[in-house]
Amino acid sequence: MSSRSEARNPLFRGGPAPEAQAFTASVRFDWRLLPFDIQGSRAHVAMLAARGILDPDTARRLDEGLAQVLAEAESGRFTPRLEWEDVHMNVEGRLAEILGPVAGTLHTARSRNDQVQVDMLLYMRHVYGRMQERLAGLAGALLQQARAHLDVIIPGYTHMQAAQPVLLAHHWLAYTEMLRRDLGRLDDWARRMNRSPLGAGALAGTPYPTDPEDTARRLGFDGIYRNSLDAVSDRDYLVEFLAWAAITAMHLSRLGEELVLWSSVEFGYIRVDDAYSTGSSIMPQKRNPDVAELVRGKAGRVYGNLLGLLTTLKGLPLAYNSDLQEDKEAVFEVVDTMDQVLEVLAGMVRTLTVDRARIRARLGRDFTAATDLADRLAAAGMPFREAHHLVGALVGRLLEEGKGFGDVTPAWLAAFLEDAGRPGAIDPAWLAELTPERLVAARRQPFATAPERVAERLAEAERFWQGVGPAGGGAARG
Amino acid sequence: MSSRSEARNPLFRGGPAPEAQAFTASVRFDWRLLPFDIQGSRAHVAMLAARGILDPDTARRLDEGLAQVLAEAESGRFTPRLEWEDVHMNVEGRLAEILGPVAGTLHTARSRNDQVQVDMLLYMRHVYGRMQERLAGLAGALLQQARAHLDVIIPGYTHMQAAQPVLLAHHWLAYTEMLRRDLGRLDDWARRMNRSPLGAGALAGTPYPTDPEDTARRLGFDGIYRNSLDAVSDRDYLVEFLAWAAITAMHLSRLGEELVLWSSVEFGYIRVDDAYSTGSSIMPQKRNPDVAELVRGKAGRVYGNLLGLLTTLKGLPLAYNSDLQEDKEAVFEVVDTMDQVLEVLAGMVRTLTVDRARIRARLGRDFTAATDLADRLAAAGMPFREAHHLVGALVGRLLEEGKGFGDVTPAWLAAFLEDAGRPGAIDPAWLAELTPERLVAARRQPFATAPERVAERLAEAERFWQGVGPAGGGAARG
Amino acid sequence: MSSRSEARNPLFRGGPAPEAQAFTASVRFDWRLLPFDIQGSRAHVAMLAARGILDPDTARRLDEGLAQVLAEAESGRFTPRLEWEDVHMNVEGRLAEILGPVAGTLHTARSRNDQVQVDMLLYMRHVYGRMQERLAGLAGALLQQARAHLDVIIPGYTHMQAAQPVLLAHHWLAYTEMLRRDLGRLDDWARRMNRSPLGAGALAGTPYPTDPEDTARRLGFDGIYRNSLDAVSDRDYLVEFLAWAAITAMHLSRLGEELVLWSSVEFGYIRVDDAYSTGSSIMPQKRNPDVAELVRGKAGRVYGNLLGLLTTLKGLPLAYNSDLQEDKEAVFEVVDTMDQVLEVLAGMVRTLTVDRARIRARLGRDFTAATDLADRLAAAGMPFREAHHLVGALVGRLLEEGKGFGDVTPAWLAAFLEDAGRPGAIDPAWLAELTPERLVAARRQPFATAPERVAERLAEAERFWQGVGPAGGGAARG
Amino acid sequence: MSSRSEARNPLFRGGPAPEAQAFTASVRFDWRLLPFDIQGSRAHVAMLAARGILDPDTARRLDEGLAQVLAEAESGRFTPRLEWEDVHMNVEGRLAEILGPVAGTLHTARSRNDQVQVDMLLYMRHVYGRMQERLAGLAGALLQQARAHLDVIIPGYTHMQAAQPVLLAHHWLAYTEMLRRDLGRLDDWARRMNRSPLGAGALAGTPYPTDPEDTARRLGFDGIYRNSLDAVSDRDYLVEFLAWAAITAMHLSRLGEELVLWSSVEFGYIRVDDAYSTGSSIMPQKRNPDVAELVRGKAGRVYGNLLGLLTTLKGLPLAYNSDLQEDKEAVFEVVDTMDQVLEVLAGMVRTLTVDRARIRARLGRDFTAATDLADRLAAAGMPFREAHHLVGALVGRLLEEGKGFGDVTPAWLAAFLEDAGRPGAIDPAWLAELTPERLVAARRQPFATAPERVAERLAEAERFWQGVGPAGGGAARG
Repeated sequence: MSSRSEARNPLFRGGPAPEAQAFTASVRFDWRLLPFDIQGSRAHVAMLAARGILDPDTARRLDEGLAQVLAEAESGRFTPRLEWEDVHMNVEGRLAEILGPVAGTLHTARSRNDQVQVDMLLYMRHVYGRMQERLAGLAGALLQQARAHLDVIIPGYTHMQAAQPVLLAHHWLAYTEMLRRDLGRLDDWARRMNRSPLGAGALAGTPYPTDPEDTARRLGFDGIYRNSLDAVSDRDYLVEFLAWAAITAMHLSRLGEELVLWSSVEFGYIRVDDAYSTGSSIMPQKRNPDVAELVRGKAGRVYGNLLGLLTTLKGLPLAYNSDLQEDKEAVFEVVDTMDQVLEVLAGMVRTLTVDRARIRARLGRDFTAATDLADRLAAAGMPFREAHHLVGALVGRLLEEGKGFGDVTPAWLAAFLEDAGRPGAIDPAWLAELTPERLVAARRQPFATAPERVAERLAEAERFWQGVGPAGGGAARG
Repeated sequence: MSSRSEARNPLFRGGPAPEAQAFTASVRFDWRLLPFDIQGSRAHVAMLAARGILDPDTARRLDEGLAQVLAEAESGRFTPRLEWEDVHMNVEGRLAEILGPVAGTLHTARSRNDQVQVDMLLYMRHVYGRMQERLAGLAGALLQQARAHLDVIIPGYTHMQAAQPVLLAHHWLAYTEMLRRDLGRLDDWARRMNRSPLGAGALAGTPYPTDPEDTARRLGFDGIYRNSLDAVSDRDYLVEFLAWAAITAMHLSRLGEELVLWSSVEFGYIRVDDAYSTGSSIMPQKRNPDVAELVRGKAGRVYGNLLGLLTTLKGLPLAYNSDLQEDKEAVFEVVDTMDQVLEVLAGMVRTLTVDRARIRARLGRDFTAATDLADRLAAAGMPFREAHHLVGALVGRLLEEGKGFGDVTPAWLAAFLEDAGRPGAIDPAWLAELTPERLVAARRQPFATAPERVAERLAEAERFWQGVGPAGGGAARG
Repeated sequence: MSSRSEARNPLFRGGPAPEAQAFTASVRFDWRLLPFDIQGSRAHVAMLAARGILDPDTARRLDEGLAQVLAEAESGRFTPRLEWEDVHMNVEGRLAEILGPVAGTLHTARSRNDQVQVDMLLYMRHVYGRMQERLAGLAGALLQQARAHLDVIIPGYTHMQAAQPVLLAHHWLAYTEMLRRDLGRLDDWARRMNRSPLGAGALAGTPYPTDPEDTARRLGFDGIYRNSLDAVSDRDYLVEFLAWAAITAMHLSRLGEELVLWSSVEFGYIRVDDAYSTGSSIMPQKRNPDVAELVRGKAGRVYGNLLGLLTTLKGLPLAYNSDLQEDKEAVFEVVDTMDQVLEVLAGMVRTLTVDRARIRARLGRDFTAATDLADRLAAAGMPFREAHHLVGALVGRLLEEGKGFGDVTPAWLAAFLEDAGRPGAIDPAWLAELTPERLVAARRQPFATAPERVAERLAEAERFWQGVGPAGGGAARG
Repeated sequence: MSSRSEARNPLFRGGPAPEAQAFTASVRFDWRLLPFDIQGSRAHVAMLAARGILDPDTARRLDEGLAQVLAEAESGRFTPRLEWEDVHMNVEGRLAEILGPVAGTLHTARSRNDQVQVDMLLYMRHVYGRMQERLAGLAGALLQQARAHLDVIIPGYTHMQAAQPVLLAHHWLAYTEMLRRDLGRLDDWARRMNRSPLGAGALAGTPYPTDPEDTARRLGFDGIYRNSLDAVSDRDYLVEFLAWAAITAMHLSRLGEELVLWSSVEFGYIRVDDAYSTGSSIMPQKRNPDVAELVRGKAGRVYGNLLGLLTTLKGLPLAYNSDLQEDKEAVFEVVDTMDQVLEVLAGMVRTLTVDRARIRARLGRDFTAATDLADRLAAAGMPFREAHHLVGALVGRLLEEGKGFGDVTPAWLAAFLEDAGRPGAIDPAWLAELTPERLVAARRQPFATAPERVAERLAEAERFWQGVGPAGGGAARG
């Protein structure tokens, strides 16, 4: 971290080139760090006073001045000044206007390198709370849909081909499982990053008798970094956050794809609420699931930012290099994206309606009972491979004739089995028993789709997510 | 492309959810398309009038209204209105305020899908001109440095190990070669994308008797797309641009790395001008090559945007999907980045100073003459592998004794050769002949480092780059 | 490029660490370069002889020896030896076994750095021919499908919502357009890369009086690089190839997605041939479009390899660095993937069958005529926005009642228009006229979906693709 | 997961296309899963027997047969058969050869989808142990270097500019901190993924009365997935592993860059052992740090595989899709890469030698004491900004005269201060006190570079890493 305007010293003749100044300035995007910059500075001042490095009166004046800068920024009276390049210089510049030369003592025993790091860490801790809320919000919407449709059965898909019937609630709960792992990763990340770099100075520590553990406590960190070079050059916590976001965005893109598919005329399982769909400028009949499409598309930008920061960090020697300044735009964009995407998806899911009649009609026309028919044959003693083949042949014949299992009469079945060389192998009654209800009820493993299992899982998930949020205690979950 | 505010029709009850509206709005970033949107609309109106689809008076009023909207936007009187969501709705909304209901006829025989596409194509054609200038600007700075130091020899590196001496000018010219390929790719891209989509409507064409080739001519396109579904869903020209930018940014990151290395105390070959370096907030002696570091780091963001758009496009069915709206932020950010990076690097290169004395001193202390010594032995009849080994042994002995070739006396050499079992194999005079000047002069292939070759190449490069720019004619170069 | 086994010289004591040797060895994957390595070496030898650097007899022996090594490798008698690390050392090692010490003269005036570069360039030129064939193969399959179904109309989609009817052939032709741009990019790439690096030596040229333009001619290059440092460190042609592949793979992932969608029960437009689908191990009714799914998934690996090489190249100083060795696995994997993916997709497309009845039935149930109805109202004098709203209301009412346009009776329509406050606005006859056939026929722009336009485009595309292939002359197309 | 050869049933006529079969086959790369596939199958059989689904005798025969297949594969008697496509079919095929038809019962109550998932999970748990060892191996090498050079001071860098002196041990310990976070992420990942999917069947559970918790216990899992759809389609644990690898590879690329830099002639701080460096084929003096370069370059391939899998997963609907088959090559390549890279770097670090004399000489010539001189002035009462300026001016003058701090005489200093308008501001004795030893000793924060602090940190790190390894208990660390 270096600064052009601040640090002009006699080594430098002539001012900076305007395009270079514009290129290296960051206040355009780092202004959001202001509250965290001031929080860090106030803790630093308090520590300096406690250690006798600053006298009490100076410390008090600095603290009051910093509080004033914060108040001015929050009320909109103090806005970014481009000539002060970054948020840190903006705070110091405004502080100097308020306090005069004593403002310069704020920088005692501190470097831009440890300062920007503590700002980002405090900001990301704040982001942690927000992301927990957002994950819980989307999980809540999915759970609400699951609870409201515990009796709805849909075709479960593999390879986008109807495979076996499952409860719709079971399907939604697959997504809350993904979100639960996302929350677990978030908790792990938050725990790992909660260490203070303040006191590392530019890279090596500082000759002032500071107490970094004191600053860490004041700022709510669990402790300090173990190495000062690492403290100023570590960006793992940002890459790990981006990796978290990428995996979460991948999950959301899958959900987005399904919402798009299911709201198509061809599927027609759900109807997206008007509040979350849009029309066409020229096609009056269109109801476009824009929000779900954009969510799906946003995965690209999130992945891109992850790859971008990883690339920027590749091959950088220790310790601080200006390349690290590239971390902020990537992280801020992803924070905003995840914030928005999780919120808007929650609203879309919460308000969608399910077309029970359409789904029911659809279930009657597929062959999702085929596995169970083969299993029934196997249970009656036929080797599984043979049973599999016989049922395959049966399905093939029905498809040729445009029929479903429901259209099979005893006579038709007898004729088919005769042809297949397996007369009597299938009892016509079996077919009648292969209702979607029986098929789902038969799958009773703790994680399977039988209604009472799904109800248990749903209740457990509801309990889990109720406790999630900034006050919910990630550590306890971890 | 669909729009919430515009297209509310009776199919929709209740307004959009605020967070969904915020999520899908784009005027925050697509405002820069305004001049191109108006350019496209004016051509569309002219064609509609020429075909008799609009009456001349309506067409004239629309044209004047559009001209007024442009003038208002350029003068700052008309600024983005968020409730109008995107730039197209902003233009139409303002036009309606100016003209009243007749403004609605502008949308005749056009869809948002072909409109946004033509806007982006016109914008990217504008970007083409800017990028040519920027490439030429950086190439010019490199050529200027090459011209100014035609007599400076540096150690050439492989594996970051000094390998063989080369002209400094030869080194700079390696970068202009990269830029020349970058320019070639840019030309190819610009030629390929210059086709108009207007008239494709939403996806299938339009029942109005429009003349898309007429609109294409008015807008300076070479022709029209060959398929309307492709015309509205193609984003190749944006991905190809991002791939161009990624390769170019890769080149610039290599140059950035070298500027950082060469301005370190350990190398010390160049001094970055004060206007392009910064000091430290606490270390008075520092001169940080921030600009070069940031340029190096920017490669990450450019790569990320390429990967992001590729990901967004993966697996999208035809034709338009809202995911495509994600193209803009990626492309705009990269356009701005490349614009800035190429400009600031040009300034940095143009103003850097070369420390001839330091380089000269450095040359005396390495073993970049070793290859030629081995060649000399081979020329005198020793098998190359043996020569290679003998010189390796000689270098090893000198390194042990902290000596360079320049420190070798005839007596020392004789003793060494005796030990090596090759008495007399090396004539002491040869060593004296292995000056950097002779070594570079000996490499006389057209692309090699002999001064007269480099001078030829430099002159040719100067001629080439002089003709580059928006008026320079990419097609001719292609 | 450096080599462990070859270049052990007195500077090195003790052998390489086994894990380091395994780590740096490349013959496991670079063996495929053997024919190109030998081709380059033979041209090099011929040039050395022509310039009098090698005597004719030595040159003849080297040439014969190289031919023998090639023959042995092609016949399987000579297989990779791991202790010789890379393909170059394998060729030299085997040559030395055949010829004895004279084999060492092959390396005169050449370095590993320009040698590996020429090998890769020759290999990629070979890849160029293959990729042209593969693109033409897939385009041919699509054209065949288009030709066979010129009379089939499908719903065209935007936002995965049925939008307006289009010809199925028009849809397939959108993909041949993408492939045509892919071919254009491939041609540009092939033209740009066709320059020889031989003679650049390690980085600076060589003191031998070689003639690199002679070698270039013998190898069919259009000329030589313009700068020797660039000649050995340029990997643009590999990144550009990977970018080509990424864009092409993106197109194929879109086609893959559509094949998966269209072969689902819900769409049912196509049936994938048995030869290109698979069953399930437990679900007898399944027909999984595996090939299309894998093609869709392969986009990930191709993108990853592009980003991987870009990352590897980021920030590398000139000239050769061992990091560059990482280019090969990325490129070879992508070459093989594209080769396979294009071939298998061509087969899948060529053999799929279209379910005309299903598509026809589907067309009757949607509202893809809505735009044209609104246009009809506008043509009759109603402002477009009003027409759009009225049709939207009509569609809404029909959806509520589970009806389509085909179900509208004059009485029902009259009642609806009465309610809507627009009595008589819609002539019942108009609805009857809105057949898919009339809708597509009305869109007559050169790139639109009217049957005669599509037929023209198809014929033009057939002519174009017939000329494509290694003998087809990319330059002429460019 | 679907299989061509196994599941040919009457729905399919004609065999698969050869290129499709080649395209979908995976045994070429999934053979390494064989031991895990057999481990999973044996647990499955044991559970089936315990639940009475298989009779004891059948279960015993299956178990013995599977043991035999494993033994044959381990001894090399059983090798992959391409016609059996994947590792699962290979195991089943060989089992059928050994046991006859009873082998078919192995597939009871199981699907390819839950089978391949459990195989990969077991494999990744095995990888966990290996990666712990490898991280500990590299950390151990760094700690050994730190221990051996506790008294060596180097210039610490920011922006690749010498900034302040630090202990070399402090520098190495920055890397062990990175590795420690890498280990923490690995532990979190291993804990999170340790859940069994067996029993989920194709997607919905199975109608057989299986006990998935029993199988989970037999295989050492902590429990089972909570949702069967998620159980078969989750690939989070693979993406999270790749993200772990990408962050770790990023750290290693930074270390690689420093090893390359430090072994250059310009730095000369270290000498890479002969066993880990290579020579040049034509430049006898070269010692190339190939291994470090390749490690640096490998970051690209690791990043690429992460992005590739993320891309492949983007937008996939539930549950299993064949795209997921693309996970294996990415993961296997990264496992092998990390295994190799961590091992070879450990060897390289362990054997490198430090050039103490060179470093010492280098320290005398820079201005890394400048910050402390400014601090000294500030401590004496001069405002910090003024002190910073005065020292900057002093450095500037010395640079002009080619001098260092060590060259300053009292007379020269007095003259300078006179000129600067600050006579007597700097006591000449202060300069003499600014030795590197005093500078490092003055930085006494717990994470700073004072020798006793570094010694404490080193001892703590040695204790920590001693406990790391497969037996070391990640959970306890977590």
